[in-house]
Amino acid sequence: MPFEPDATHDPNLKSWVESANDAGTDFPIQNLPYGVFCLNGEDPWDDARPGVAIGDKILDLQVCAEAGLFDGLDTEDEPILYEFGTIGLNGLMLASPERRRRVRARISELLSESCPELKDNADVRDEAIVPMDAAQMLMPAEIADYTDFYASVHHATNVGSMFRPTNPLLPNYKYVPIGYHGRASSIVVSGAEVRRPSGQTRPSDDEPPVFGPCKLLDYELEVGFFIGPGNEIGEPIGIDKAGEHLFGMCLVNDWSARDMQKWEYQPLGPFLAKSFTTTISPWVVTGDALAPFRCASYERPSGDPAPLAHLYDNDDQQAGGVDLTLEVLLSSAKMREAGMEPVSLSKGNFKNMYWTIAQMIAHHSSNGCNLQAGDLMASGTISGPERSSRGCLLELTWDGPGEPGADPVPGTQRTPIRLPTGEERKFLADGDEVIIRGWCERDGFRRIGFGECRGIVTPAV
Amino acid sequence: MPFEPDATHDPNLKSWVESANDAGTDFPIQNLPYGVFCLNGEDPWDDARPGVAIGDKILDLQVCAEAGLFDGLDTEDEPILYEFGTIGLNGLMLASPERRRRVRARISELLSESCPELKDNADVRDEAIVPMDAAQMLMPAEIADYTDFYASVHHATNVGSMFRPTNPLLPNYKYVPIGYHGRASSIVVSGAEVRRPSGQTRPSDDEPPVFGPCKLLDYELEVGFFIGPGNEIGEPIGIDKAGEHLFGMCLVNDWSARDMQKWEYQPLGPFLAKSFTTTISPWVVTGDALAPFRCASYERPSGDPAPLAHLYDNDDQQAGGVDLTLEVLLSSAKMREAGMEPVSLSKGNFKNMYWTIAQMIAHHSSNGCNLQAGDLMASGTISGPERSSRGCLLELTWDGPGEPGADPVPGTQRTPIRLPTGEERKFLADGDEVIIRGWCERDGFRRIGFGECRGIVTPAV
Repeated sequence: MPFEPDATHDPNLKSWVESANDAGTDFPIQNLPYGVFCLNGEDPWDDARPGVAIGDKILDLQVCAEAGLFDGLDTEDEPILYEFGTIGLNGLMLASPERRRRVRARISELLSESCPELKDNADVRDEAIVPMDAAQMLMPAEIADYTDFYASVHHATNVGSMFRPTNPLLPNYKYVPIGYHGRASSIVVSGAEVRRPSGQTRPSDDEPPVFGPCKLLDYELEVGFFIGPGNEIGEPIGIDKAGEHLFGMCLVNDWSARDMQKWEYQPLGPFLAKSFTTTISPWVVTGDALAPFRCASYERPSGDPAPLAHLYDNDDQQAGGVDLTLEVLLSSAKMREAGMEPVSLSKGNFKNMYWTIAQMIAHHSSNGCNLQAGDLMASGTISGPERSSRGCLLELTWDGPGEPGADPVPGTQRTPIRLPTGEERKFLADGDEVIIRGWCERDGFRRIGFGECRGIVTPAV
Repeated sequence: MPFEPDATHDPNLKSWVESANDAGTDFPIQNLPYGVFCLNGEDPWDDARPGVAIGDKILDLQVCAEAGLFDGLDTEDEPILYEFGTIGLNGLMLASPERRRRVRARISELLSESCPELKDNADVRDEAIVPMDAAQMLMPAEIADYTDFYASVHHATNVGSMFRPTNPLLPNYKYVPIGYHGRASSIVVSGAEVRRPSGQTRPSDDEPPVFGPCKLLDYELEVGFFIGPGNEIGEPIGIDKAGEHLFGMCLVNDWSARDMQKWEYQPLGPFLAKSFTTTISPWVVTGDALAPFRCASYERPSGDPAPLAHLYDNDDQQAGGVDLTLEVLLSSAKMREAGMEPVSLSKGNFKNMYWTIAQMIAHHSSNGCNLQAGDLMASGTISGPERSSRGCLLELTWDGPGEPGADPVPGTQRTPIRLPTGEERKFLADGDEVIIRGWCERDGFRRIGFGECRGIVTPAV
């Protein structure tokens, strides 16, 4: 059971960084997510360094390490400066679960109200504590491989119903955590431009395809999980060890060009409809921070098969899931000009996924495929059973059978979403900003948040 | 036209490295492929360095650079030691096409019979010239993203005929260079172990799936191409510029678990059936070395649509293809014990591909996806129109409709391949070694070769 809360989760723990004690903050001392940043005006290539979010500040881990504040954690094999000196958080992700927990405990100590070491060392403190608005967040890790799963049975059923009304869920779905390799190079951090892609689409089945800007641009609400130490090629990770390879989680927007996707995806899966951009939130909330929010995994309806032995996890009934609430918001350019707040499109929860993180990790490596520190896996679109918890516009505006029209699924009826400006959306327009938020709450624990994953759609080239 | 032969292709050019002048060598002075190596006994992590194959020797480029032999090529922006100092060949791949050509011309000069600079400098020469059998070849580049295409219409038609006899080729095939993201972490260099994967398969449509060692293991004959400078996200590479982003080519074996593939691949494409291991040959034959062997691209049968404008290349009719002969050979463990030579399974040619390298590069970036120096793209299985040119066992042993049996395609008749030991193969057995070779020949030019791409199948865990 790697999910036992410890002293770092004590809800009464306070920080000397005052803003971390605000009720509304995503980043109390119980959270301590990792990210990579540079100061505004610095060079993102040369000056990138790891930090920890605390209230509305960032703790600069390199400054702390250089000041000797992590000296007790150094070993000959694993000097802490190595872990904080590699590109992104990959060095830290390589560390063993025990070492990750020791580093977390030390950071918690350094930031806690009662600890004078950093609080009362003005020289180091003034350099080590950076206001978030003075910094630019960068990619948290060098992501070598990116895999996108399809783990929400509600999403798979909705989308399947559109394309195969009589046979929505394929026979493998309840046995195989379906996933595919995604494009790593075009993963960008929250705030980066999202250019509307151009590509091939076929407006009608009896005409040739055309090339031009995507007309049916969508977002997908997902969460990502970064892999810890990983495995050697040919040596699968057993389901009982899979949890140890979860380093931490972030929010993911898997932008999707639905018209391109429909034309290209057979027989080898999604490609250019997804690979133009994927946006992630900059702060990686660690598996350790999430320990109090582990919950029973999705309860398979009676009649569903049990997972095969290599995917069967005794922990699942207690702690296979993560009780993580997710919200998607939208603001159009007009709304922002008028000073309006973004509107909420949907709310969902990661605990509704058919497959757990441990099952996805075990499955991915079950053929001997080597996972590496810094690999990113994403959950697939997170949709719940209610319409209000559907995680993309393809599902959210979908009513069922109807008139054919400008839709990736001919014969589909859609009700557009009405924005406070009177604008309507079936899919995304240029200038639209999509914002994903996520947080964990549980009685007896401090609420922790993921920050935001944002992107504004800009016109095609 | 980036495919003009120059002085480095002169068939009369000879090297002072005698073995490079042998008629049978893959590596005459007209080839000069790049690779990464260390000496036997050295540490592959710490001592990896780039080299060039010349006859049965390797020219150590770091030794040459440190001895000042590339000084004339240094510029402030692009010092040659930087290019030869990064992990793998990624630094060199970043260089502009003009600079790549200057480096090639200089290496050609240094190795040519008439040039005394290295030949007569015994101290440097003895360190810089390494016998191939004293060295271990390593991965030629750090591959950030790997994409596998499906560019042989013969392969797509054969496989489609097995699964959809009445409708073998999907409607998008002749418009879209179909491809999917592959797994980069499990790409290994020739000679590395290929462990038989385990995974889920469903032996029959009315039974639940089982987990266990793959029973229908296959190879796929492909070629790979490494990307040169690449593009920024959101800025597609036009078809007229695509050729500049081809750094060089290698041989690829895309090992495939056919029984796992059949069960998992819908709806998101191949995943664990491919991601356990992909083997590449260690020497990267540059686009420049291949200039004399460019040829007309595949002639689309009359009635086929012309490529859409963004994939239409005026160069195609002259030089869109590469006249590259490929051969697959097999030796079983028993054959090797009996001292028998490998048997040839098939011969094909890369010029038979429906889509050209330029089209695949332009398509891949057409949505704004950023390609990066060191990315690897593979062609997909290379099959020609004849049975003897089919590039995998799935096709090679396939006869057409027949009795159901232990086959990824029920109702398929197969004739096993008979080995000289009397053994039979429909798919690969443990101990089988698959060897891919490739070479280019043309009247008036020196033959150049790709070396070998080898892997032996070892038993499942």
